[in-house]
Amino acid sequence: MFELPQKVLFKHCDPAGIVFYPRYFEMMNDCVEAWFDARLGWPFETIHGAGGVPTAAIATKFAAPSRHGDQLVLHLKVIKLGRTSLTYEMTATCDGAMRFVTEATLVYVGNSGRPTPWPAPIRAKIEAEQAL
Amino acid sequence: MFELPQKVLFKHCDPAGIVFYPRYFEMMNDCVEAWFDARLGWPFETIHGAGGVPTAAIATKFAAPSRHGDQLVLHLKVIKLGRTSLTYEMTATCDGAMRFVTEATLVYVGNSGRPTPWPAPIRAKIEAEQAL
Amino acid sequence: MFELPQKVLFKHCDPAGIVFYPRYFEMMNDCVEAWFDARLGWPFETIHGAGGVPTAAIATKFAAPSRHGDQLVLHLKVIKLGRTSLTYEMTATCDGAMRFVTEATLVYVGNSGRPTPWPAPIRAKIEAEQAL
Amino acid sequence: MFELPQKVLFKHCDPAGIVFYPRYFEMMNDCVEAWFDARLGWPFETIHGAGGVPTAAIATKFAAPSRHGDQLVLHLKVIKLGRTSLTYEMTATCDGAMRFVTEATLVYVGNSGRPTPWPAPIRAKIEAEQAL
Repeated sequence: MFELPQKVLFKHCDPAGIVFYPRYFEMMNDCVEAWFDARLGWPFETIHGAGGVPTAAIATKFAAPSRHGDQLVLHLKVIKLGRTSLTYEMTATCDGAMRFVTEATLVYVGNSGRPTPWPAPIRAKIEAEQAL
Repeated sequence: MFELPQKVLFKHCDPAGIVFYPRYFEMMNDCVEAWFDARLGWPFETIHGAGGVPTAAIATKFAAPSRHGDQLVLHLKVIKLGRTSLTYEMTATCDGAMRFVTEATLVYVGNSGRPTPWPAPIRAKIEAEQAL
Repeated sequence: MFELPQKVLFKHCDPAGIVFYPRYFEMMNDCVEAWFDARLGWPFETIHGAGGVPTAAIATKFAAPSRHGDQLVLHLKVIKLGRTSLTYEMTATCDGAMRFVTEATLVYVGNSGRPTPWPAPIRAKIEAEQAL
Repeated sequence: MFELPQKVLFKHCDPAGIVFYPRYFEMMNDCVEAWFDARLGWPFETIHGAGGVPTAAIATKFAAPSRHGDQLVLHLKVIKLGRTSLTYEMTATCDGAMRFVTEATLVYVGNSGRPTPWPAPIRAKIEAEQAL
């Protein structure tokens, strides 16, 4: 499983002193971006220009609020690999306590903006991730 | 049904020239905030300080990308009213074409941060909204 | 002078319940984008693709904090027009009281990413704005 | 001098593929927050609740655009310490090349929201930072 530490910063928090939930989606995107870079060796800055990996669907349950200063860890696990898509589960925990659980599907699109099969070497790396 | 127009602005868009999906969640929050103000007469700036309406769960399907300059309309409809919660469906369309569909549940919390029954006059207004 | 109303929304505010200052810069960008559209007839979605108007310098003094629910008005005035640049002053007020004063310079760049003279019809419109 | 590395991520970039300048102000705020934590031992999550350090003025020159994937380093140096305020200079570089230079003044405010003298132990640490 891939992990990304993320301290809750001032910019993430709302007037109630807890994470404003759209900011969680930025954290999730950062985690996916870090995973593509660290595990697939295919950073977003390389993918973009020639294509992209837009999110087609995302569903999140927020289990408990996160406060300014909390040391979160985001965990990403691929749960399904399609011909042109992948589905991941992501959780965020703080000292082992759950903060959110997300399931999301993203799609690889080429220059055309249309769903495109994963390049073979990338597909092999995603499969290796699933086998972990 | 409540509607909020939202032009896609420069700030919403990513290097692919389409809306960065965490920005959609800001738009959704703006729409919920505008609905509380316009339809319930209970603006967020009044609720906060004494409580809040955090989002407990949210699930979104993105049907098609939105581009810079697109004239979106967000549509909000309450689909379920609980003792301390409400569930809404929100869609965004552009010239009638679907861009996203969201279903989300938010919870009313009082000073304590714990789920709290809706105040009776607010509950009555939400029921009136459902009856529309 | 060009004016854009902007209510302070939940998303703009920090744990102190006042506008998080990077959010002010988003408001400023929205105001410049609205001015290009409304007054120059040259919306950002048309400019981009073939060029852009990046900000080269910006200086802001924050006179007083803005709170959630405040009804701000942003005011934009061109104070200098260069061959490839323009300098504007922007203020934000709430019920006439000053919240911030900004002076910023943006540069027109073409496809090349290099400073490019304003197209003549746009230049004429900017001059008309200055004469108001 | 205090340094904070910051890779340019997807979320920072606009349709032109370069950093959207309000995102730079978030990076600056992150750098100030990290400096308070690492060098003053006074993290924002401790300061807030009992006060804050709002920005009173900020002026930035953008020397060159930053692209997705760029490895920036932010550098913070205190250049003036007042009774209730401090002024810092911050630069961002990429492989030694300048991207922006900022000068900003922030003010310590107590519970009242009014400028308040720095606590003596904090003042001593800021002076030690200046002496570096």
